[in-house]
Amino acid sequence: MTFSVLHHNGYVVITFNSEAIVSPEELRSFEPPHAIRDNFAHKGVILSGRGPIWLYCFLCHYYHPTKFVATYDPRLQGAVVVQSHGSEYQPGEIIPISSDLIN
Amino acid sequence: MTFSVLHHNGYVVITFNSEAIVSPEELRSFEPPHAIRDNFAHKGVILSGRGPIWLYCFLCHYYHPTKFVATYDPRLQGAVVVQSHGSEYQPGEIIPISSDLIN
Repeated sequence: MTFSVLHHNGYVVITFNSEAIVSPEELRSFEPPHAIRDNFAHKGVILSGRGPIWLYCFLCHYYHPTKFVATYDPRLQGAVVVQSHGSEYQPGEIIPISSDLIN
Repeated sequence: MTFSVLHHNGYVVITFNSEAIVSPEELRSFEPPHAIRDNFAHKGVILSGRGPIWLYCFLCHYYHPTKFVATYDPRLQGAVVVQSHGSEYQPGEIIPISSDLIN
């Protein structure tokens, strides 16, 4: 599984790609981009990629130390905030985002 | 949206059902079963139901104060642990669970 990190004002877009179907065991040796080490804990995180629900849920918890976490939903043409630790965004808000920024 | 809570040894299974398609705005007035008020913070939570990724991610964060959170995946015939605050389970572990317990 590979990850890309695109920096924007206020948030990073983290996109994951996997050639093969990912299995839960892989979570044990998983090394996604790290908010502190990779210096984006002061920003929010928008997650994007094809993957199972448990992968998204794992990553949401993993990025808990950031400003907010949102998941990109192409049907909504934006990312839905699912947790927020600042006043800027509230859960349920949609951050409009162009699909150009996602791929 | 309605929720059911089934108590088992060590965890509760929380199943959500929605007749209509859920919209992100609903998260603002959302009242899922509450771990402290409904007295299951000492257990883990297994989430099950048909819903968008952002709903699962919201609920995973919502149940952060519990012992662990796992998401049921019918293809795996079990629930994948996505966060754990005890030593009993680690992220990536699959808790085998019969579909009888889910529906």
